[in-house]
Amino acid sequence: MVSKAEIALVRSLGDKKGRREHGLFVVEGRKLVEEAVASGWAVEKIYAAGADTGNYPVQAALVSPATLERMSRLKSPQGMLALVRIPAATPPRIAPGKLMLALGGIRDPGNLGTIVRIADWFGVGEILCSADTADRFNPKVVQSTMGSLFRVEMHYGELDQWLAEASGIGIPVYGAMLEGENIYTSSLEPSGIIVLGNEGSGISPATAARITRRIYVPPFTAGRPRAESLNVAAAAAVIVSELRRRTV
Amino acid sequence: MVSKAEIALVRSLGDKKGRREHGLFVVEGRKLVEEAVASGWAVEKIYAAGADTGNYPVQAALVSPATLERMSRLKSPQGMLALVRIPAATPPRIAPGKLMLALGGIRDPGNLGTIVRIADWFGVGEILCSADTADRFNPKVVQSTMGSLFRVEMHYGELDQWLAEASGIGIPVYGAMLEGENIYTSSLEPSGIIVLGNEGSGISPATAARITRRIYVPPFTAGRPRAESLNVAAAAAVIVSELRRRTV
Repeated sequence: MVSKAEIALVRSLGDKKGRREHGLFVVEGRKLVEEAVASGWAVEKIYAAGADTGNYPVQAALVSPATLERMSRLKSPQGMLALVRIPAATPPRIAPGKLMLALGGIRDPGNLGTIVRIADWFGVGEILCSADTADRFNPKVVQSTMGSLFRVEMHYGELDQWLAEASGIGIPVYGAMLEGENIYTSSLEPSGIIVLGNEGSGISPATAARITRRIYVPPFTAGRPRAESLNVAAAAAVIVSELRRRTV
Repeated sequence: MVSKAEIALVRSLGDKKGRREHGLFVVEGRKLVEEAVASGWAVEKIYAAGADTGNYPVQAALVSPATLERMSRLKSPQGMLALVRIPAATPPRIAPGKLMLALGGIRDPGNLGTIVRIADWFGVGEILCSADTADRFNPKVVQSTMGSLFRVEMHYGELDQWLAEASGIGIPVYGAMLEGENIYTSSLEPSGIIVLGNEGSGISPATAARITRRIYVPPFTAGRPRAESLNVAAAAAVIVSELRRRTV
């Protein structure tokens, strides 16, 4: 039997305030719970609607589907839910020869989750995030990373300072910007930091001041009317792919 | 004053059944309404919560914000809404030398909308869709295309037949599949049809039988654990970019 207080605690983790207070976040669905366990992150509680014979570090508490629904912040609860300890923040390891992503104010949880998956696929191990980027432990972000969250390190905080530090030691800081160079025809080093800005307003002036090289995914529409912009996750995929390709 | 029946009609357009019955779909937000008008599609009604001095082909009906909220199927109604006539279906123009996309069962409206935006950006003028792909006039799809819907032709129906027709006249039919060739190192013609499958189950066996060349975006993780797959819209962006790049 799960108490009302326990349900309220789990629900509170849907908000940043609750997560900060308890130092926990929620992953949902058997597959993602298994990824959390396999990742070595501290899984502290598991709730399952129905018996589960999986091999978990903690005994899954059996709850009714209705209780699980009350705990969940998702539209479609997944039958299983775990509370995972939020790891201590670590400073980014800014060094030459690596490819990193930097996010300046990405707000949409789905975009952020997709970008984390893209980083995972292309072996980009660290993402630098401005403080106003969507929280990686937001339930929608967690679910849309599909487990990549456990493999890609994300650092939140002084993005502009980190970028200044990087360019100070000669690391290229690429900014995806409308007035940038054509990524297909420019000679670009395949390592560095790729900066992506907010979905609506792009890269902020303060962050833009840290960019050492402006790059651009050109449209292929020969003057015809076309989309105003590429979705930020799609731009991330194209740019990371283009830089990685050059190492093949 | 807007009648209850009128509100019910607009709401019914959130479902495929209602759209089929009335032959109309909804676009929301001033920007998208303006795109609809500019596109030349038949804008039949406009509802605005507040005076609007825009130049529209029909007089905007003033409604209260509460009424607009009741009409809208979106979580965040946008203050303006238009009913647009669904154009008559036209057959795809399958011909050599073009780059096209084909979608086999893309179900997530956000993914579909993002793919339409990618097509628009990269000058891919037509998308072939299996009958079970999310409807392009679903409100979430419409909004996430951000206007690209009006510039990219989408055909729904006999996907496998269209693909057979294409390969029959020597057009490459590329399938994004796990066991495919590395897109970065393969010599690929920059025109043809790129087939993308369902988010969970990939390309169906019946559609796979029509693929003439299997292609793959390889991961860059050197054997380390990584994401099981790239998000389908991210894969679309990478593959389209890679083929377009070869024409630069």
